[in-house]
Amino acid sequence: MTRNIYLEDIPLEEAWDAFRAALTAAGRWQPLPAEEVALAEALGRVTAAPAWAKISSPHYHASAMDGYAIRARDSAGAAETTPLTFTLVPPGLAEPEPERPAQPVNTGHPLPAWASGVVMIEHTQPVADSEGREAILIRAPIPPWQHVRPLGEDMVATELTLPANHRLRPVDLGALAGSGHAAVTVYRRPRVAIIPTGSELITAEAARAAGMRPGQIIEYNSLVLAAQVETWGGRPTHWPIVPDEYEAIVTAVRAALQEHDLVLVNAGSSAGSEDYTARVVQTVGQLLVHGVAVRPGHPVILGMAEGDVPIIGVPGYPVSAALTGEIFVEPLLARWQGQLPHQPPTLTATMTRKIFSSTGDDDFVRVAVGEVGDKVMATPISRGAGVITSLVRADGLVRIPRFSEGVDAGSQVTVHLYRQPAEIARTILMIGSHDLTLDLLAQFLAERGEGLRLASANVGSLGGLIALRRGEAHLAGSHLLDPETGEYNRSYIARYLPDTPVQLVHLVGREQGWIVRRGNPKKVQNWTDAARPEVQIVNRQRGAGTRVLFDYRLSRLGIEPEQVRGYGREEYTHLAVAAAVASGVADAGLGICAAARALELDFVPLEQEAYQLVIPQVHYESARLRPLLDLLQDAAFRAAVATLPGYDVSQMGECVN
Amino acid sequence: MTRNIYLEDIPLEEAWDAFRAALTAAGRWQPLPAEEVALAEALGRVTAAPAWAKISSPHYHASAMDGYAIRARDSAGAAETTPLTFTLVPPGLAEPEPERPAQPVNTGHPLPAWASGVVMIEHTQPVADSEGREAILIRAPIPPWQHVRPLGEDMVATELTLPANHRLRPVDLGALAGSGHAAVTVYRRPRVAIIPTGSELITAEAARAAGMRPGQIIEYNSLVLAAQVETWGGRPTHWPIVPDEYEAIVTAVRAALQEHDLVLVNAGSSAGSEDYTARVVQTVGQLLVHGVAVRPGHPVILGMAEGDVPIIGVPGYPVSAALTGEIFVEPLLARWQGQLPHQPPTLTATMTRKIFSSTGDDDFVRVAVGEVGDKVMATPISRGAGVITSLVRADGLVRIPRFSEGVDAGSQVTVHLYRQPAEIARTILMIGSHDLTLDLLAQFLAERGEGLRLASANVGSLGGLIALRRGEAHLAGSHLLDPETGEYNRSYIARYLPDTPVQLVHLVGREQGWIVRRGNPKKVQNWTDAARPEVQIVNRQRGAGTRVLFDYRLSRLGIEPEQVRGYGREEYTHLAVAAAVASGVADAGLGICAAARALELDFVPLEQEAYQLVIPQVHYESARLRPLLDLLQDAAFRAAVATLPGYDVSQMGECVN
Repeated sequence: MTRNIYLEDIPLEEAWDAFRAALTAAGRWQPLPAEEVALAEALGRVTAAPAWAKISSPHYHASAMDGYAIRARDSAGAAETTPLTFTLVPPGLAEPEPERPAQPVNTGHPLPAWASGVVMIEHTQPVADSEGREAILIRAPIPPWQHVRPLGEDMVATELTLPANHRLRPVDLGALAGSGHAAVTVYRRPRVAIIPTGSELITAEAARAAGMRPGQIIEYNSLVLAAQVETWGGRPTHWPIVPDEYEAIVTAVRAALQEHDLVLVNAGSSAGSEDYTARVVQTVGQLLVHGVAVRPGHPVILGMAEGDVPIIGVPGYPVSAALTGEIFVEPLLARWQGQLPHQPPTLTATMTRKIFSSTGDDDFVRVAVGEVGDKVMATPISRGAGVITSLVRADGLVRIPRFSEGVDAGSQVTVHLYRQPAEIARTILMIGSHDLTLDLLAQFLAERGEGLRLASANVGSLGGLIALRRGEAHLAGSHLLDPETGEYNRSYIARYLPDTPVQLVHLVGREQGWIVRRGNPKKVQNWTDAARPEVQIVNRQRGAGTRVLFDYRLSRLGIEPEQVRGYGREEYTHLAVAAAVASGVADAGLGICAAARALELDFVPLEQEAYQLVIPQVHYESARLRPLLDLLQDAAFRAAVATLPGYDVSQMGECVN
Repeated sequence: MTRNIYLEDIPLEEAWDAFRAALTAAGRWQPLPAEEVALAEALGRVTAAPAWAKISSPHYHASAMDGYAIRARDSAGAAETTPLTFTLVPPGLAEPEPERPAQPVNTGHPLPAWASGVVMIEHTQPVADSEGREAILIRAPIPPWQHVRPLGEDMVATELTLPANHRLRPVDLGALAGSGHAAVTVYRRPRVAIIPTGSELITAEAARAAGMRPGQIIEYNSLVLAAQVETWGGRPTHWPIVPDEYEAIVTAVRAALQEHDLVLVNAGSSAGSEDYTARVVQTVGQLLVHGVAVRPGHPVILGMAEGDVPIIGVPGYPVSAALTGEIFVEPLLARWQGQLPHQPPTLTATMTRKIFSSTGDDDFVRVAVGEVGDKVMATPISRGAGVITSLVRADGLVRIPRFSEGVDAGSQVTVHLYRQPAEIARTILMIGSHDLTLDLLAQFLAERGEGLRLASANVGSLGGLIALRRGEAHLAGSHLLDPETGEYNRSYIARYLPDTPVQLVHLVGREQGWIVRRGNPKKVQNWTDAARPEVQIVNRQRGAGTRVLFDYRLSRLGIEPEQVRGYGREEYTHLAVAAAVASGVADAGLGICAAARALELDFVPLEQEAYQLVIPQVHYESARLRPLLDLLQDAAFRAAVATLPGYDVSQMGECVN
């Protein structure tokens, strides 16, 4: 087993400098060659040359109204009391015979050579002239060139219609056609090969068809990278999965180099025993960079292959892969199309939690962003490189530069947004305890089609109350049992939110109990079973309502945490607890029935608890939360929640205080 | 000739109310039916149903590092001075034999069932154990679950992966695949038929091939509408041009109604003698609205055809057509895809000129926007509905509500942006006299690929100085002759910008002279010929440098404006003057040689003038203008300008003051 543990650690700017220098030396740090495409195919392409108007538009003096072309000077003296009669003449006359001729014209018709203005049809009245010919009356004089679009009003031949390096929008296509172009010269679209490598990979289709074994991973980085390339104007070629065999990868890469401007190899870019990408790059060309000081995304490989085709080794973790696309692929594709790198909209936000940052890396932290009151809050989302859902849920990125020491809670940060600011303004931020109902709530909100979005962060019930106190969320979900009163939440609100008027709204009643393996092999039945030495427990994190309940029952029974095997193993959601049981890591964990059923586990009910919404009065009365509160009265929503096992919706929406 | 002059004038909101009511009654004011598409085809589509995770990800406990799986508790007591030896074991063992087993794992490999953590390869050292077997040394204990991605870390089966009504981005496709989906349920793309009508229309291809006659118009609205539909997620069908014949239009519309969700008929929506669209709509269904109080865009038709297919009569003027797309088509396509109407980014800007607004219409004013110093300025662009270049050049729209009386110069307005604010920040605003060199300057700036954009508004030399005084532009082009000193610009700058330090930079010398028809039939040779009674003149607008020169020469020769035929007909650019001569409207106009040559006219030189750049010192020294000033020293740029007839580049870039 050959294992190469060395990986350089090059700062991002230096990595780009090396890559750019190699591209420049190879004549590849410049736009791609141009090609001519028909206008109907040109949307979104980028002009490779200026387009100069070939004709003027209009290319003749055109009537700008429906009406009559006349000589403006003929109308002098016309007035309400002394209207003038104009005799109708047909088109095509060089010098019309009548004293005051008028030719009917519609919008866009050429002005007759003898005419010098147009009177609108609404300002005329049909009559007969003194000789009985069809005529009109005009009751006001018109200035010369009234309602005439002069030749060249829009464009004059030889003027610049569009500069080079301009991405074509719908109206640009119109301007090109109108100035006499039937085609346009644009940069060729960059062709990008994406080669997924890895013997552990299977396609999503194969996983659907045949199921998965441990160690197998659904290959989807190539899907993400291909979609990124398409979004950025390139043409992706999606290679079949190549196993972790050096020769097979070399063969695939050599084939891809023939017909592509860029080759992405994913992954094998790290330093494990089956990470061949660096060796492959050295075989087909020059290895420039192996390892960039960014997080996530560290094991990036940059190289230049024979034939001057750049090659990028993309890390395997999905977040790393997607960020490598944004950091290295997007600027290259932009350059090849004569564009600057994408600059996302930014906004300034208050960071809700302290972020520790490793000193040597530029750290890209995914955050959820929301407006709460008059402040914009950014809450970090899971930082794991394997958590693609952190990118799905992210509203933006906060970049923490290397050698900074992180960011303190409450400090102002710049967020590079993935969404338009308008979407942020329509986000309801919910922080607190997790419940399956929240997914349904998010779903029903989205289905209303009003663009309202529910973003929820799961930090446990207490964490939610603290977030409300800090003004970091619009509402919190909480199921905190007060051991003294037997009531839920009220005493905690009084303690943690003494100065904030809040509404406490009942969401659901739900059963808490033991989540156990099928058939309950360890026969876990009641609270005391937690202390049985052969029973391995999985716990919830401190501050979670379920944890409060667990600790309360243990203490009432006189059981010390040390007596509970696995007390220290904490998970953050009900489903994660169930997953721990399903995987055999634990025999039992306290949670809700729905989570057990979701993973086809058994459930031993222990007691019913109240899951409630804590909503500061100011948000409760806001227009933003109205649709969410309306849903609590919605029969379809209640019915959907009632299908979850162990849920009671009879009190949903009732104000508790 | 039947002429229908009646057109209703329905406010925009009421028109939408009527349209929405008819769509709702027909069951069409809701998302389109769903279809299932493979993930690789799903980018940009909108989910029609929530996607719940079918599997957990990872679906097993996975090593998060390259290293060795061990039992965490086995590492207790390991230290720098007392390393512990772990014996390597192969994968697949249920209970390994050695006292302290270690199994090599790479990132993503499943954790063996007996193990409870991973130690990084970097933190180990290869050795042999006491029995000579392959082993590693570990010098620090690890906590349980170190470097393990637990089952469900990213997604837990049954959790919500994506809600409905979500437009799919690259990372979303990854999350769908990772949660076990090979396909996704999305709304069908709206199918939109676009039928251009008009006997005067020819295609851009036909115009290129055979030239154009007066009265013929290149049909490009359908190109713009089709590109808009595509941009907004629809599938356009581009109909061939239908002549202005009632039966032909009915036949085309009936055919289109069969297979489309929406039919756009362009144009014939006004009230002219050949405007059949309203009648056609009444024939195939119900006419809901004819005429909406918006400007441009007035003659819009909204209807509902048999089979509950909405039909929109789109006005013929290109700006009206494009805005009708934005106002009526986009919100409908958005609704059909479960989305809110597009909300462009907005910014607040200072309006540089007074806008008069007709009281009954919502007025959509195209503006150029730029940051000048610390202010954002919005300058109105041509308001003609026929001027598609006004939309091309526009940075955004200012909407002036009906029954307001317009907007005063200096007032704050909300601009709905067509560009990202970042592009606005890279815009150089130049206001003043027009010169062909400016097109080349814009072109060379664009080719630098730095995203810098030159926006120029042509208001004449004096207008440019006034714009500088008001802080509305970064620089102005000027060629104002001082009759007393014979110098250009300096005395005007002293008068109009007394308190502003400016740099005066020479751009080009250029010949002014008579632009005349080929062969100069009226034998116009010198200044006095302007007063010959048989010579029809076209003039430049007041404040233009060319106008100052003309007035100066006339007064020196004692010629009164009344003696000059056509003195009152004003054009705003050299090319517009040339176009007026080319069209036969005028015999001669004062202008530059290049404009005459561009339209294949003759030119009679009169005198050489200096065209200079007036740049406030603060902008002259700014980073923003540096690339533009650098171009004045650029050999390629000078060579390009020197090819323009009558241009002298010998002093280009010299500071004059």
